[in-house]
Amino acid sequence: MAKIAICGYGTVGSGVAEVIAENSDSIARNAAEEVSIKYILDLREFPGDPFENCIIHDFSIIENDPEISIVVETMGGTGIAYDFTKRALLSGKSVVTSNKELVATKGHELIAIAKERNLNYLFEASVGGGIPIIRPITQCLTANRIDEVYGILNGTTNYILTEMIRNNASFEDALHQAQANGYAEKDPTADIEGIDAARKICILSDLCFGKHVNPAEIKAQGIAGVTSADVEYAKRLNCKIKLLGRGLRTGADTATAYVAPHLVSNSSLLSNVDGVMNGIVVHGNALGNTMFYGAGAGKRPTASAVVADVIDAVKHVRARKYLDWDDAPAGYFTDSSYVSSRWYIRAATSLQQIGWAFEKVNFVTYPGAASDEYAFETDYFDESTVLKLTGGMKLRSIFRVLD
Amino acid sequence: MAKIAICGYGTVGSGVAEVIAENSDSIARNAAEEVSIKYILDLREFPGDPFENCIIHDFSIIENDPEISIVVETMGGTGIAYDFTKRALLSGKSVVTSNKELVATKGHELIAIAKERNLNYLFEASVGGGIPIIRPITQCLTANRIDEVYGILNGTTNYILTEMIRNNASFEDALHQAQANGYAEKDPTADIEGIDAARKICILSDLCFGKHVNPAEIKAQGIAGVTSADVEYAKRLNCKIKLLGRGLRTGADTATAYVAPHLVSNSSLLSNVDGVMNGIVVHGNALGNTMFYGAGAGKRPTASAVVADVIDAVKHVRARKYLDWDDAPAGYFTDSSYVSSRWYIRAATSLQQIGWAFEKVNFVTYPGAASDEYAFETDYFDESTVLKLTGGMKLRSIFRVLD
Repeated sequence: MAKIAICGYGTVGSGVAEVIAENSDSIARNAAEEVSIKYILDLREFPGDPFENCIIHDFSIIENDPEISIVVETMGGTGIAYDFTKRALLSGKSVVTSNKELVATKGHELIAIAKERNLNYLFEASVGGGIPIIRPITQCLTANRIDEVYGILNGTTNYILTEMIRNNASFEDALHQAQANGYAEKDPTADIEGIDAARKICILSDLCFGKHVNPAEIKAQGIAGVTSADVEYAKRLNCKIKLLGRGLRTGADTATAYVAPHLVSNSSLLSNVDGVMNGIVVHGNALGNTMFYGAGAGKRPTASAVVADVIDAVKHVRARKYLDWDDAPAGYFTDSSYVSSRWYIRAATSLQQIGWAFEKVNFVTYPGAASDEYAFETDYFDESTVLKLTGGMKLRSIFRVLD
Repeated sequence: MAKIAICGYGTVGSGVAEVIAENSDSIARNAAEEVSIKYILDLREFPGDPFENCIIHDFSIIENDPEISIVVETMGGTGIAYDFTKRALLSGKSVVTSNKELVATKGHELIAIAKERNLNYLFEASVGGGIPIIRPITQCLTANRIDEVYGILNGTTNYILTEMIRNNASFEDALHQAQANGYAEKDPTADIEGIDAARKICILSDLCFGKHVNPAEIKAQGIAGVTSADVEYAKRLNCKIKLLGRGLRTGADTATAYVAPHLVSNSSLLSNVDGVMNGIVVHGNALGNTMFYGAGAGKRPTASAVVADVIDAVKHVRARKYLDWDDAPAGYFTDSSYVSSRWYIRAATSLQQIGWAFEKVNFVTYPGAASDEYAFETDYFDESTVLKLTGGMKLRSIFRVLD
C-alpha cells in the first residue's frame, strides 16, 4: 500500500482524489500495489467531503510521516508550493505536480535535489493537461534529435480564437463567453497575454533541447491584438489564427522560444485543433512531425496526468526516472527575433510604400475590409528586418505565418 | 557501453543502424551509456556497407555472446523471428521489435518469458511506426479506465483513400499510384484487406483492456469495396471514408475489436489525418479523448521507435518495464457485430422498401449519382439488425458512421 499526501484541495487536487477513488482497481493493478490518500493539506475545512477525515492544515505532519512516500503538489504558484516541494524532497518523498509555473522557473533546481536523493519530481500534468507529452518526449523520442516543438498550449485563448473564427465574435465578446462558460478566469491576464503558454513552451524546450530556458527571458505576445479583421483576412489566406508557443534549436548549442499568434494553414492538422483543446507538434530528425492532441486543462484530464505520475512514482521508489535538463550556459538562449518566417501584415499604408518595402507580397482582402488598409503576406524575414521594412507603415497587425 | 545485435538488415533494421550512428551523442546521453552495434544478422552480405564488419549469418553467435544485452528483431513474420526472440530471451537478452505480427499473435507468451527472467520485450514500433503510443498507453494513461481505442492504423490504405477523396481517383488507380510511390507493396493484400490494421488494433486492445485479443478472431474488412460513389456520397454527408481499427470494452469483463471502413465526420480531427499518416484516438474515463498523430511507417520513423526502446532497455537492464496483458478467459472476446452505430448504406432498392425497413433515414445524393440506387444514413443499429432490415435490398456498400 502506497500512502500519499495531496497539498492543495482545489480543482486539480480534488480531481486527483476523485480519480484515485474511482479507478482504484485499475490504479492498483498498474502500480502493482494499492494507492491510498492519507492526508490532504488545505487551509479550508471540507465538511461532508468524502475525504473530510484526511484534511490537515500543517505541512510538517506530512513531512514527518515516514509512511508518506509521495506528495502531490496541486497548489500552484512559486511561494509555499516551492517551499513544500523542497521540504518534501529533503525529507525523502517523491513529488508529483501540475504546477507549470514552478516547474518552468525552479524545475531544474528541484530535479537536482530529487536526483541527489534518488527521488522523483514528476510533472506530466504541467503541460497539455491530460495529454501525454512529457513522457513521450523524454522516453519515446529519445532516438531523435528534436529540432523544434510548437503547439497550441493554452485552451482559454484557443477557445476565444475559435469563437472569433467560427462565430465572427469580437475578441471582447469571445472573452466574455469564455468567462461565462468557465473557460477563462475572472482575471484572464495569464492566459490572454501568453504567460501561461510561455511557461509551458519553456518546459517543453527544457526537455526537448536539454537546457533551461527561463520564462522571464522569452517574448510572449498574447491575443488581445487579434481583431475580427485579422480573422477574416486569415480565412482568405486559407489560415486560422492560433496562439502558438514555439521552441527551436537555432544552432549546435543554442535555442530559442517564444509565444505569439500565428497564421496556421488550414491544411495542417494543428489548425483543426479547436475550442479548449491543445495540440503539440514535436519534430524529430528521425521521426519527422508527430502531434499530441487532447484536453489541455480541466479537472479530470489534468488529474489523470497527475495520478499517472503517482503510479509511476510508486513503481519507481528508489529508482529515478530520467527527466532532466542542465543549466544553460551563457549565450545558449538566443533572441527569437532572429527566427525567420513569412509574415502576415495589416497596415494603413499605400501600395507605393509596400512596393518600396517588399519585392513581392501576396495581397488579400474580403468584403467589408477597411478601405484605409492593406493586408498581405510577405516572403521570409526575421523580425528586425520585417520591422525595419515596415517602419514607414502604420502597422495594425503583424503575425508570423507558420510553415 | 551497451552492445546490441540487430536481426534482419532490411528497411527497418538498416534504419536502426543509421539512427544509432547518426544520433549517437544524444542516444548516449539519454541511455546514460554508449550504445554500439556488435552484430547484424542477415542471410545476405553487404559489401561496402558502413556496418559490413558486423554482418553475421549465425544466430548462435549472438545467443552465446554474453556481451550482447539487447537483441533488435526487425525480421518480421512469426517463423524464425519467433524462434530467435525466444532463444534471445532464454539466453538472458532483452528483445526490442517492430514485428507487429509476432507481437499480436505471440506477444503474451514472449512477455511471460521475459517477465520470468526479469528481461524486457519492447515493441513501441509495432503500432503507429514512430508515433509514441505503446508507452503513453501503458505509462501515461494508467490513471484512466480506457474504454475505447480506434484509429487510422495503416498508411497504405489511408494514402489510397486520401487519393480517392482528393483527386477523385478510382480505387485501382489510387492503388497503382501507391505502389508507384513505394507506399504499397507489390502484393498489397495485408494492407488492403485490413490484416495489418487488425494486428495493430489487437495489440492496442491488449494493452488498453488488459487481455489478449487474437488477430485470427477479429473481423477485418478492407477497403477494396470502397468506390468513388461512396466517396462522393460521404462528401455530401460532410464525412471522409477512413479505414479504422477499433477496440471497445463491451462490458465489465468483455471487449471486442474489428477493422472496417467508416464514415468519419469532417469536424473530427481524425478525418484530417491524410496521406500515409496515422492517427490513434484513445478514450479514457478521466481524460476523455486524446489523439496521437504521425508517420505510421517508413524507415526512419519506425527505426526511431525501435531505438527509443533500445535506450529504454539499456536503462532498465534487470528492471522490467511494466508492459503486460493476461490471457483472455472464455467469453472475454465478444462479436463486434453487436456494436451499435449509425450506418451509411448504398443500395439498389426502392423508396418504398427503405420506408418499410427504417423509420427514419437521411438521404444523400450528388450530381452524377447512379440512377438505380439510393444512399442514406440510418439511426443506430447493431450489425445483425441492420443486415436483417436491409435483407430485401441489393446492398452495394454498407459502412459504419463513427460518432
